[in-house]
Amino acid sequence: MPRALIVHAHPEPGSFCAAQMREAAGTLQAQGYEVQISDLYAQGWSAGLGRGDFTHPQGGHFKPQAEQVRAAQDHTFAPDVAAELEKLLGADLLVFSFPLWWFSLPALLKGWVDRVFAMGAAYGAGVGTYDKGRFVGRRALLLFTTGGPESAYGPQADNGELETVLFHVHNGMLRFAGYTVLAPVVGFSPVRVSDDERAAQLGRVREAFQTLDQRTKVFG
Amino acid sequence: MPRALIVHAHPEPGSFCAAQMREAAGTLQAQGYEVQISDLYAQGWSAGLGRGDFTHPQGGHFKPQAEQVRAAQDHTFAPDVAAELEKLLGADLLVFSFPLWWFSLPALLKGWVDRVFAMGAAYGAGVGTYDKGRFVGRRALLLFTTGGPESAYGPQADNGELETVLFHVHNGMLRFAGYTVLAPVVGFSPVRVSDDERAAQLGRVREAFQTLDQRTKVFG
Repeated sequence: MPRALIVHAHPEPGSFCAAQMREAAGTLQAQGYEVQISDLYAQGWSAGLGRGDFTHPQGGHFKPQAEQVRAAQDHTFAPDVAAELEKLLGADLLVFSFPLWWFSLPALLKGWVDRVFAMGAAYGAGVGTYDKGRFVGRRALLLFTTGGPESAYGPQADNGELETVLFHVHNGMLRFAGYTVLAPVVGFSPVRVSDDERAAQLGRVREAFQTLDQRTKVFG
Repeated sequence: MPRALIVHAHPEPGSFCAAQMREAAGTLQAQGYEVQISDLYAQGWSAGLGRGDFTHPQGGHFKPQAEQVRAAQDHTFAPDVAAELEKLLGADLLVFSFPLWWFSLPALLKGWVDRVFAMGAAYGAGVGTYDKGRFVGRRALLLFTTGGPESAYGPQADNGELETVLFHVHNGMLRFAGYTVLAPVVGFSPVRVSDDERAAQLGRVREAFQTLDQRTKVFG
């Protein structure tokens, strides 16, 4: 049975962003996926990579990457990091579900990447990156909502092109770790559209997660 | 007296990243700046935008931006956000000092943007964005360290071009809020270079902050 991990970061369970996430989760289950959801706000996830990531941090000068490599060898990640890392390593499909805040991931989700995409476990130090990455052959995609409409993105728009905005996540996080990156599923400006349009967007989420094999690839 | 705000996010006070920050702060003071430093790890900064950002959050469905607009009108930001917002609004120069983690800001610094660049206070809701932004006429720049060397960035490199990687911060955060964005000051791969090279890099930091008026602009 294929396994999916959805990492979700929105402070309001009643948000449209959360509705998209539930639609995706239900659709994946209907497709035969075992779905795990890391709901970072609900979990009280701590965002700041630091000594607290390790059960036995070395004293003195703290080098985050060196500590991660050591923890990956010695299995000494703190319980919250270890639990997420286990989910990540077991997932054939990785989905980040979030509101696009400041053209990037909300801080809690960025902190999940900082802490769980750990050197020696998810990349580097014998594991590799990009086409030598740990997750080569697995798929990842972004599922998010925006404040602005689709027309607010483009080569002439102040915001720039969405693919440029997302490059640091698509290429720098997901492809870096080896994933095949599928085209994002985007709910544009849900606060400003009608109930009918929001329902239509949930239909598009369902369709997207029913047809992942046919979905356009951003990378890989 | 011009005022500078340096927002710094590295978990290790003895890091080269922190050394760059101190070099910048000292140089700015020598240039006549009043310098404030928000050291996010030292402050125990909380990264997650949520109800805790407000002294009187409304019950029911939580809408982050609507709450920010209301808090900006009613002066009901929580003390930690209010304190940072006051520093931000008073600063002629804004500097983000950080290690480039996952081609972006560390989560604590991203959370500073999520929480302090608040709608109705720093942008939007009558304040404006881009060339109508609150901070038009003020300057901002990034001061950071990387894991990889300079040659790991470029049109043919897996990491892509640094300006593409940074677009979401330069354009999406700083220019969005109205800032003139100066070229970043980058310490490439300090863990892999010699003591002499690290000293030379601190010299480049000093020179950069001595010559901000002549510095290349990324935007604005």
